Amino acid sequence: MASDEQLLIGIHAVSSALKAAAGQVEWLRIAADSKNKRLIELESRAHGSGINVIKTKPSELDKLSAHQRHQGVVAGFKASNIAAEGRLDAILDSIDDTPLILVLDGVQDPHNLGACLRTADAAGVHLVVICKDHSAGITPVVRRAASGAAETMVVIQATNLARVLRVLKKRGIWLAGTSDEAADGLYSTDLTGPLALVMGSEGSGIRRLTSELCDYLVSIPMAGQVESLNVSVATGVCLYEINRQRKIS
Amino acid sequence: MASDEQLLIGIHAVSSALKAAAGQVEWLRIAADSKNKRLIELESRAHGSGINVIKTKPSELDKLSAHQRHQGVVAGFKASNIAAEGRLDAILDSIDDTPLILVLDGVQDPHNLGACLRTADAAGVHLVVICKDHSAGITPVVRRAASGAAETMVVIQATNLARVLRVLKKRGIWLAGTSDEAADGLYSTDLTGPLALVMGSEGSGIRRLTSELCDYLVSIPMAGQVESLNVSVATGVCLYEINRQRKIS
Repeated sequence: MASDEQLLIGIHAVSSALKAAAGQVEWLRIAADSKNKRLIELESRAHGSGINVIKTKPSELDKLSAHQRHQGVVAGFKASNIAAEGRLDAILDSIDDTPLILVLDGVQDPHNLGACLRTADAAGVHLVVICKDHSAGITPVVRRAASGAAETMVVIQATNLARVLRVLKKRGIWLAGTSDEAADGLYSTDLTGPLALVMGSEGSGIRRLTSELCDYLVSIPMAGQVESLNVSVATGVCLYEINRQRKIS
Repeated sequence: MASDEQLLIGIHAVSSALKAAAGQVEWLRIAADSKNKRLIELESRAHGSGINVIKTKPSELDKLSAHQRHQGVVAGFKASNIAAEGRLDAILDSIDDTPLILVLDGVQDPHNLGACLRTADAAGVHLVVICKDHSAGITPVVRRAASGAAETMVVIQATNLARVLRVLKKRGIWLAGTSDEAADGLYSTDLTGPLALVMGSEGSGIRRLTSELCDYLVSIPMAGQVESLNVSVATGVCLYEINRQRKIS
């Protein structure tokens, strides 16, 4: 496989990619002789988009997918939406709206990362920045949890997150970190300007260096016993509040 | 074990329960001879709360936890917060604020159910209603994902969800369902009254019968390619918007 080609495994992942980004699906391998209606439908959609469909023995699909649950279909996907740090300026130049960026400072759980990408897409985020070292990569589990957003959301895998954050600041984008201990509440903070929302990792939140680069920190009100929200839930609560404020401003 | 006694497995689950609801922890079994600092700390916290601590061979912990990752500690927990349908009226009588109830119509994934409980606790929800048949139960995986909320949140496991919903309606509580296809948006709907938020399952949303019982349906704005949010993220977005509206009303 080419370095930017990734495997999509299972009906849901392949179907989402065919819907959201058929142009990036390079080939499909489908279990030979399957009578599964959903597989037949996928095959006809792939043909409709001019994608090469190869009938394959189930045992070969097992091997190809490293024995993950493939349900009879595996696809090759050209992940042109996953960019290196060098493309940051070009991506920022292409945003023609008030920028809304999501920075994930070390989200480790693939389900959480996938749900964050899905949420970012739903909230109209222009760019998601993840760390190359301290974070889950864009794996098949992440793709499944992202429900198609891993194929469409523009994602930068940063080798040096601090450098990316400094570029964002220089470009007039405010960095709003979330922290359990922040004095300012999410709902009493003006979030209508050009903004990068910075979320920390599941266990320990935002790293010290990252937090020092933030222009301000906000906290989500917690009414009960638990100390924090799941990171993807917190991301959703913040992004939707930003959008709400922007709509009425 | 008594029928309302459940097992907590692993350091995080036991530690959360000791913090949030030590009175419901009945006993601890800790690996004999362990020098793990976090286990020693758990043991001293349990002693401080007058909880019986039993030193146990690791092989017996393996057996007791059915070979789940116990990290040297298992606890017995009296789940007095998980109630049968018959207690509904008494629970509603005890709410001395504008009721905020979360109804989960068939959330199947234990991580999602745990994250929903955690979010409900954080948003000050008074009661969570789940289905007995079409939903994940309160398993150790759910407890871990709930970060302590599975021990504190009042949860009714309903055998007949429609009956529970009718009781809520009779008591003057509005049923607000969420649906991708609803005409009314979350942000243009008045959510300040006594309310039960009804969320559907991951795959297929709210069931038809449940949706027919709802007083109204609302949709969450979707700006991108994905069709819906993860159910725990959607729950967070809705509950926090309800609280925001109530604060300013």
